[in-house]
Amino acid sequence: MKGVSMTNINMVTVAGGGVLGSQIAYQSAFKGKKVTVYDINDEAVAAAEERVRNLRDLYKRDINATDEQFDAGLNNLSYSSDLAEAVKDADLVIEAIPEKPSIKHDFYRSLAKAAPEKTIFASNSSTYVPSTFAEDTGRPDKFLNMHFANQIWRMNTAEIMGTKQTDPKVFDLIVDYAKEIGMVPIVLKKEQPGYVLNTLLIPLLNAAAYLWGHDIADPQTVDKTWMIGTGAPMGPFAIFDVVGLRTALNITKEQQGDNPDYKPFMEKIQKMMDEGRNGKDSGQGFYTYPDPAFDRPDFLKA
Amino acid sequence: MKGVSMTNINMVTVAGGGVLGSQIAYQSAFKGKKVTVYDINDEAVAAAEERVRNLRDLYKRDINATDEQFDAGLNNLSYSSDLAEAVKDADLVIEAIPEKPSIKHDFYRSLAKAAPEKTIFASNSSTYVPSTFAEDTGRPDKFLNMHFANQIWRMNTAEIMGTKQTDPKVFDLIVDYAKEIGMVPIVLKKEQPGYVLNTLLIPLLNAAAYLWGHDIADPQTVDKTWMIGTGAPMGPFAIFDVVGLRTALNITKEQQGDNPDYKPFMEKIQKMMDEGRNGKDSGQGFYTYPDPAFDRPDFLKA
Repeated sequence: MKGVSMTNINMVTVAGGGVLGSQIAYQSAFKGKKVTVYDINDEAVAAAEERVRNLRDLYKRDINATDEQFDAGLNNLSYSSDLAEAVKDADLVIEAIPEKPSIKHDFYRSLAKAAPEKTIFASNSSTYVPSTFAEDTGRPDKFLNMHFANQIWRMNTAEIMGTKQTDPKVFDLIVDYAKEIGMVPIVLKKEQPGYVLNTLLIPLLNAAAYLWGHDIADPQTVDKTWMIGTGAPMGPFAIFDVVGLRTALNITKEQQGDNPDYKPFMEKIQKMMDEGRNGKDSGQGFYTYPDPAFDRPDFLKA
Repeated sequence: MKGVSMTNINMVTVAGGGVLGSQIAYQSAFKGKKVTVYDINDEAVAAAEERVRNLRDLYKRDINATDEQFDAGLNNLSYSSDLAEAVKDADLVIEAIPEKPSIKHDFYRSLAKAAPEKTIFASNSSTYVPSTFAEDTGRPDKFLNMHFANQIWRMNTAEIMGTKQTDPKVFDLIVDYAKEIGMVPIVLKKEQPGYVLNTLLIPLLNAAAYLWGHDIADPQTVDKTWMIGTGAPMGPFAIFDVVGLRTALNITKEQQGDNPDYKPFMEKIQKMMDEGRNGKDSGQGFYTYPDPAFDRPDFLKA
């Protein structure tokens, strides 16, 4: 098959060294891939390097990595703000740049010219299905989405979604790559906005938003019901705290607009944010952190 | 307050000795309440007695009850097919009769005449909000829903939902009663079809049904994604197996009718049922029981 390497993917460029880009790059390097982080200028590159360095304590804490293991990962990483240089030997470019269509269209058009013919492109976009950008890539058969979760080293799913034009052999190579870097590949057989996880999660969160928004049940009551009823370690409002209230508000606004079913929820969330309760990262949301009530043994008892 | 006992509820009649009625009755008796099981004739009463006797092994296995403790519960139980006799001293009648509106309307009209003025009525209905039957009771201020889950001794929630006419003191007495019989009371402040748990669960199950129905993702992929992404012990398709495929099909039919989004799901479920795969109780559903794949340690690893 023309231009597609059937051997493993070893040389990888991650475009965009933000929160998720830096994690994707480091996790790949940690698992032995040769990784270049590309970002738009030296300042952005320096910020990416800083983000990667800050992963050390998390890898040590969460997956018991040793300093030696972490350093071996660092040795597989290089950085560049020159796109042509960054992708010149790449088997795979993983795109993790901002979620703005115009930025992504421009990026893929530049990348199409800069990258060798063999290079597979994968977008980490959480919002856009791959057909949105397939034509920009100049290689729709070698383009698909590969979507990671935050804290990739422990939330280790890679949701993989192609277009009708994606070559099945390319798809399979990406599934293999996901496994090689310690991910559980989540295979989607068709394009689906939200992939699998958000397709499931958002209706649950919306239902919870409705119950609280309309004063039918308290957040803690909702979470308790979910935890007892399904055995889950946290309920929807604890998940809102993890997601962050601003993100929850933005997603609800975008998806629900002026839908009166969700207006009370959005107003209540805004009020919490006005009080500085922005979710887990702010120490206050529906629960107080650390040691939130839902983690205490008595939470499910009364 | 006229006619409402402000002391604890001790004398309880459970109307309907089916699967859930027998569990509600026995759990109440196990926790020291004096309970009468009412059913429509001697045959139905005998079947209820048999169901209660069969709970022994489950209480021993799941909550380490001793034979002595189980027997003490049995001693608090009596049975009757005479409604007037069964409710004559009742502080509370819990109705767990078939989910047919005409049957329930008739029952509440008869009960209204047979029960003392003081008696509180609570419906275990999973489908109908309490205002549906409030007028039939002749005492809308002493009527509300109290909804239990199957396997009440371990899935110990009681979802409590009044109407605008329900006396808050009656509501509080029922919350206390729920606690006294070992339940976690789930308080709803307004009527909501599906209470809290099904309001949350059904959108999640529908989303999963959509993903599989439209061949976007396999059941095991969906479940794996949910388990890794939320830490839950089972995913939506494992829940379908517990619910039973016939029930899942009936609920989807009732709620979605001819909605093309859910038609492929319903056809696929029907095909599974035609093959004898009816869910966990049949040993085969989306998984094979016992020892389903999702319970194995490698399920989340690849």
